[in-house]
Amino acid sequence: MADFLTSQTEDFSKWYNEIVQKADLADYSPVRGCMVIKPYGYTLWENIRDALDRRFKATGHVNAYFPLFIPESFLQKEAEHVEGFSPELAVVTIGGGAELEERLIVRPTSETIIGHMYARWIQSYRDLPLLINQWANVVRWEMRTRLFLRTTEFLWQEGHTAHATRDEAMEETLRMLGVYTDFAMNEAAIPVIPGRKSESEKFAGAVASYTIEAMMKDGKALQSGTSHFLGQNFARAFDIKFLDENNAQQLAWTTSWGMSTRMVGAIVMTHGDDQGLVLPPRLAPIQVVIVPIWRKDEERAAVLEAAQQLHARLKDAVRVELDVREGFTAGWKFNDWEMRGVPLRIEIGPRDVANRQVMLARRDIPGREGKIAASWDGLETTVAGLLATIQQAIFQKALDFRESHTWDVRTYDEFKAAVETGFARAWWAGDAEDEARIKEETKATVRCIPTEQPGGSGVCFYTGKPATEMAIFGKAY
Amino acid sequence: MADFLTSQTEDFSKWYNEIVQKADLADYSPVRGCMVIKPYGYTLWENIRDALDRRFKATGHVNAYFPLFIPESFLQKEAEHVEGFSPELAVVTIGGGAELEERLIVRPTSETIIGHMYARWIQSYRDLPLLINQWANVVRWEMRTRLFLRTTEFLWQEGHTAHATRDEAMEETLRMLGVYTDFAMNEAAIPVIPGRKSESEKFAGAVASYTIEAMMKDGKALQSGTSHFLGQNFARAFDIKFLDENNAQQLAWTTSWGMSTRMVGAIVMTHGDDQGLVLPPRLAPIQVVIVPIWRKDEERAAVLEAAQQLHARLKDAVRVELDVREGFTAGWKFNDWEMRGVPLRIEIGPRDVANRQVMLARRDIPGREGKIAASWDGLETTVAGLLATIQQAIFQKALDFRESHTWDVRTYDEFKAAVETGFARAWWAGDAEDEARIKEETKATVRCIPTEQPGGSGVCFYTGKPATEMAIFGKAY
Repeated sequence: MADFLTSQTEDFSKWYNEIVQKADLADYSPVRGCMVIKPYGYTLWENIRDALDRRFKATGHVNAYFPLFIPESFLQKEAEHVEGFSPELAVVTIGGGAELEERLIVRPTSETIIGHMYARWIQSYRDLPLLINQWANVVRWEMRTRLFLRTTEFLWQEGHTAHATRDEAMEETLRMLGVYTDFAMNEAAIPVIPGRKSESEKFAGAVASYTIEAMMKDGKALQSGTSHFLGQNFARAFDIKFLDENNAQQLAWTTSWGMSTRMVGAIVMTHGDDQGLVLPPRLAPIQVVIVPIWRKDEERAAVLEAAQQLHARLKDAVRVELDVREGFTAGWKFNDWEMRGVPLRIEIGPRDVANRQVMLARRDIPGREGKIAASWDGLETTVAGLLATIQQAIFQKALDFRESHTWDVRTYDEFKAAVETGFARAWWAGDAEDEARIKEETKATVRCIPTEQPGGSGVCFYTGKPATEMAIFGKAY
Repeated sequence: MADFLTSQTEDFSKWYNEIVQKADLADYSPVRGCMVIKPYGYTLWENIRDALDRRFKATGHVNAYFPLFIPESFLQKEAEHVEGFSPELAVVTIGGGAELEERLIVRPTSETIIGHMYARWIQSYRDLPLLINQWANVVRWEMRTRLFLRTTEFLWQEGHTAHATRDEAMEETLRMLGVYTDFAMNEAAIPVIPGRKSESEKFAGAVASYTIEAMMKDGKALQSGTSHFLGQNFARAFDIKFLDENNAQQLAWTTSWGMSTRMVGAIVMTHGDDQGLVLPPRLAPIQVVIVPIWRKDEERAAVLEAAQQLHARLKDAVRVELDVREGFTAGWKFNDWEMRGVPLRIEIGPRDVANRQVMLARRDIPGREGKIAASWDGLETTVAGLLATIQQAIFQKALDFRESHTWDVRTYDEFKAAVETGFARAWWAGDAEDEARIKEETKATVRCIPTEQPGGSGVCFYTGKPATEMAIFGKAY
């Protein structure tokens, strides 16, 4: 156990706050609830962004940019939407030294302003589908904030699409849920559960909301990305109409979907351990660190030269760093890079130089068991293979953890025991009031009704009514 | 001349507003002075961003992200800074439904909040230099706005660095001026003049400001990127101190530098013509468009198949689009892609298929002269070579234009004539009051004192005093 870091079992929440700062992911700012994303954390976000952006473009989306400010009257056009967001708004009342005639809202999300523009851009069925994504900052005035998980300002992407038919819009909603699932599983190595939100948890203004839910190492759930089927609600509010092939005027169907810097927090809390971060190789800012080691001065030159050669060989294939910092012991450096979650460490000493080999140390397997001797020959291949192995291994470990912390429950007592340490999976036929009571009594909520269902039917653990769907419950961040 | 577009000579300003919208670069928004950057314009911005970001990383910088909001008291810590920006601020006074105790400024630039964080992060000379860049949106409440050139909200990057010595900070300031010059010349194909700003034109709070100045096709100057040597002004205001190697406390030296979405406007107004945009190949969202042509139905299949094959061959090497839109004539498509500034058009018809050739049409050379027949064999190489040629050709054309619209002047009368249609270059020994009078009388200002000087000395055209530097004057956007 690292003595500079609170252990996860002692206080998970404290561990999280400490490691986010110690590993230089983020820092508190002097502005209430806003964070500073430090270079190491921002590079992780850049890698997340690029991996998502590739997927958006591959599914036919383009990026654009809409204004930060939204006229107050726009928000009021969709009744549920304004009700949901009103308590969290930051409002600009002064511009250029004068009181504004109409107050401007700093966007908490952009359905309204984008809806307004879509109404201007869409005239005919030929203009559809319109598939646009935006990378942006948004502001929600949160009461209790935590770095990455819930901050007043955060970075995200928000996709906004318009379609000619209900089916196409629903297909898009689920396609993007699939994109998020694929990203979470294969890039972030987080085994998420895709599913539908309950009525009481859905997005303000949506007909149906979909989510990917992840289990953190304290057994709590983190909503990690959402995709909303907005029906014709926003099209009606903003008059997004088109002439169909028969020259008849129709209301469009719209969707929106978003993933945010919260994903950084998800990665930290899914994979991290008492030594610090454990980053998935595909997203890690530094995938491999080379630490040259020598005891005697006369060993220095040969070791450094070999380390530099390896660095030069690896740097086109992987994100590799050579640690030549003076005045630090090798042991100190090992701890430092472990704390920062670098997936693979290459140690090279005088004996390794003599034997034309290195020692490889896996971040995900602590101690001797994670160490492998490897030849200089073909090291590029060895390293690439090992990074893929680590990516798979940490995914499997997180999946095993989630499965061992998920219980099928039939009674409310079993339910209460389950959500103390993880997820409860249960037949569910309750309504919003039942959900509110359960939340009041246990702090647990429906995280989602998973897309994958066992089929058949059962008895709702809470209401005793016949149920055709199982739901996942948990305490949420 | 395109009849859908006002000609440049008739009304350059109107031409600009029209083409920006017609080519789908941007649209007006319902929020005063804010624009919507449409997908085509945003892709151009993404290409600008990537080309800059590569250069920033190659010169040792990393990206981070700082809060959108700045406490009002921060801005007041640097006297010149607050004086310069006060008239343009957007102010948040309400958050989460309640009046804020301290009002928050929507960042117009981030020296102050970053200065505050740097004071926390920098303790020792070992923490220096600190080389951070941020990609962000900023807000300046402008009275008269124009798409891309001057908008209330715009996107930009702002670099902020801290150094142990004056020399290092000055070196960084000039290094980044060099990066901007290199980017403008080699990516945007804009022949800019790097130089120093006069006292009255420098950044609020800077010791010295440097700029790259470009000439637009109406002879006016566009400031296209700036790099500021901030001395110890912000270090003093925000207490950015470090212990030097002798354990003595020192104030740091800082710089800042920025380039914005204004660069999109610079590209439009440097290269565009009466047919529309002319985009530099290195930044163009679409570098090559393939337009298949047939008259008879029976020709369609063979032409389309050949066009698809060419598209498949080219798409890994260049950003290529195949235009298979139905219901439009080839001529209409030619005009459409010319208007959008695609550098190279490939036409392929039945005879071309028979001869295993295509016609290549250069956007920068209108009509027959810009057409070249090329064999299918080695087309990848032909196209890549031609794109490089076009890149160079439009740079040269812009340089020729600037040189033919720049006059060495010795008298105020010559000066007045010169700035009517372009730049005046002159020995200059005036002060801020002289400059203000000249601006009052001619609307022209010192654009910069170019880095490259002829050497020697002369007589100031305005004051008659001996002068050791030449300055470039022009009317500015």
